[in-house]
Amino acid sequence: MARKSRSIELTQVVEWNDGKSNRVEDYLSAEEPLEMRAGRRSLGVTLRTPGNDEELTAGFLFSEGILSDREDLEALRLPDQNAPERNVVRVILANGVRATTGSVTRRFSAGSACGVCGKASISQLRRRGLRCPDSNVHFDPEILCQLPPKLRETQAVFGRTGGLHAAAIFTSEGDLLVLREDVGRHNAVDKVIGWAFLNERLPLSSQILLVSGRGGFEIVQKAISAGVPLLASVSAPSSLAVQLARELGLTLVGFLRGRRFVIYSGEKRLTSVPASVATP
Amino acid sequence: MARKSRSIELTQVVEWNDGKSNRVEDYLSAEEPLEMRAGRRSLGVTLRTPGNDEELTAGFLFSEGILSDREDLEALRLPDQNAPERNVVRVILANGVRATTGSVTRRFSAGSACGVCGKASISQLRRRGLRCPDSNVHFDPEILCQLPPKLRETQAVFGRTGGLHAAAIFTSEGDLLVLREDVGRHNAVDKVIGWAFLNERLPLSSQILLVSGRGGFEIVQKAISAGVPLLASVSAPSSLAVQLARELGLTLVGFLRGRRFVIYSGEKRLTSVPASVATP
Repeated sequence: MARKSRSIELTQVVEWNDGKSNRVEDYLSAEEPLEMRAGRRSLGVTLRTPGNDEELTAGFLFSEGILSDREDLEALRLPDQNAPERNVVRVILANGVRATTGSVTRRFSAGSACGVCGKASISQLRRRGLRCPDSNVHFDPEILCQLPPKLRETQAVFGRTGGLHAAAIFTSEGDLLVLREDVGRHNAVDKVIGWAFLNERLPLSSQILLVSGRGGFEIVQKAISAGVPLLASVSAPSSLAVQLARELGLTLVGFLRGRRFVIYSGEKRLTSVPASVATP
Repeated sequence: MARKSRSIELTQVVEWNDGKSNRVEDYLSAEEPLEMRAGRRSLGVTLRTPGNDEELTAGFLFSEGILSDREDLEALRLPDQNAPERNVVRVILANGVRATTGSVTRRFSAGSACGVCGKASISQLRRRGLRCPDSNVHFDPEILCQLPPKLRETQAVFGRTGGLHAAAIFTSEGDLLVLREDVGRHNAVDKVIGWAFLNERLPLSSQILLVSGRGGFEIVQKAISAGVPLLASVSAPSSLAVQLARELGLTLVGFLRGRRFVIYSGEKRLTSVPASVATP
């Protein structure tokens, strides 16, 4: 049962327990930088847990607005795991496609006229073409309550290190489509969106995105970019996350624990009675 | 008790509880972007909880290696809270001082010779001059166990929103020097380091830094930059955090809960019997 995965590492630690110290072995969540390069240009660097690097790269490039179509991406070249460049993913774009890298670094840097504020951040996202997710889809609150236990059961690595965030996509019937973990919450979300992107399942217009941590602004933005109508988290969202969810019509659920949750935005999709006739 | 602080916001939400929905009022942790500018140049943008913005700016500039001495900083100009530019902090550098901004964006972007890996990230920090914290200072495990309850008691905002990370500096006797909160874990750490920087209390060579979340690579790096010998967290560190702590001689403690914790690095500082004579 040696560690096959690069996502965990075994190490020697000292456990202090009620005055007694013991040298024991413990698992750590692996964290290494990953750089994404198109030709000689760096598209971004992120600290991530190794594993599913193609999905992470595809999800990052898509959800940050650098790539918009599956066809724009010809290939992702992963180096050999023992190569010195094992943490550099080569992004091969389709003929004639140019990646718009500026969007990442400049995202929150507004002009001097309006200053930097939540509103400026949201208008920048609107200019990128982010739209309201499908408003005619409905979800059953009872099914929603079943998702966190399903997430935890599936989180094999989490049980060993306690240090990984998780993101998962579920169908509206509560079936798990994909679960990914990472030391970075954003990375876990990028991995599941990247999975959908690479498998041509975007937009996720009738699915649920569940995250193990807090639902911040950037997680909401990534959910909307993937067309997800319902983002749920076991913890609290921030004010800017709620503002963005309300402006762009995402259903945002927090504190999803046991048989209770809080709806911050888009509660219509969670009414027990579905809309009778959907007229455009 | 209306909200005086910009760190929390009151909003209307729907609470779903065992099949019943109720419209209630709830507090949110505020999150807004903050841009730091020196002249016309942007030094960085971060999503943060408003409040203690001078400390956040000073701590960010210091722990990222952009500023190294208190004297390099002439002033920080905060706009009026109602001004359109209320989220832009002006950094006035002392005469003749130039901020080295490249370090932030290029931190993990290594040359093509070695690729990107943990080792490369660590050597970049060594080149920045980060050194081993004081190795002749000792801490009492019993006092360490008292810190998380003290942190929680002091976290007034936390109780209301459940969404804020905390960072605090304690003396070796367990006295709280400063506590700051933020939606971003890194920002909470930058705020307490910025407090120390502005009050000319750096390096923090006999203090303890306690963080509410996970101890990742960047938190370890910030702790070492401030000269802190002991970083403790209630959760798990990542592999790269442990590697950096070991290479630079930081005492790293995780899972600090009740009367138990795990020492990942530098256990010598936590032995019950202090070193008898400290010879250089």
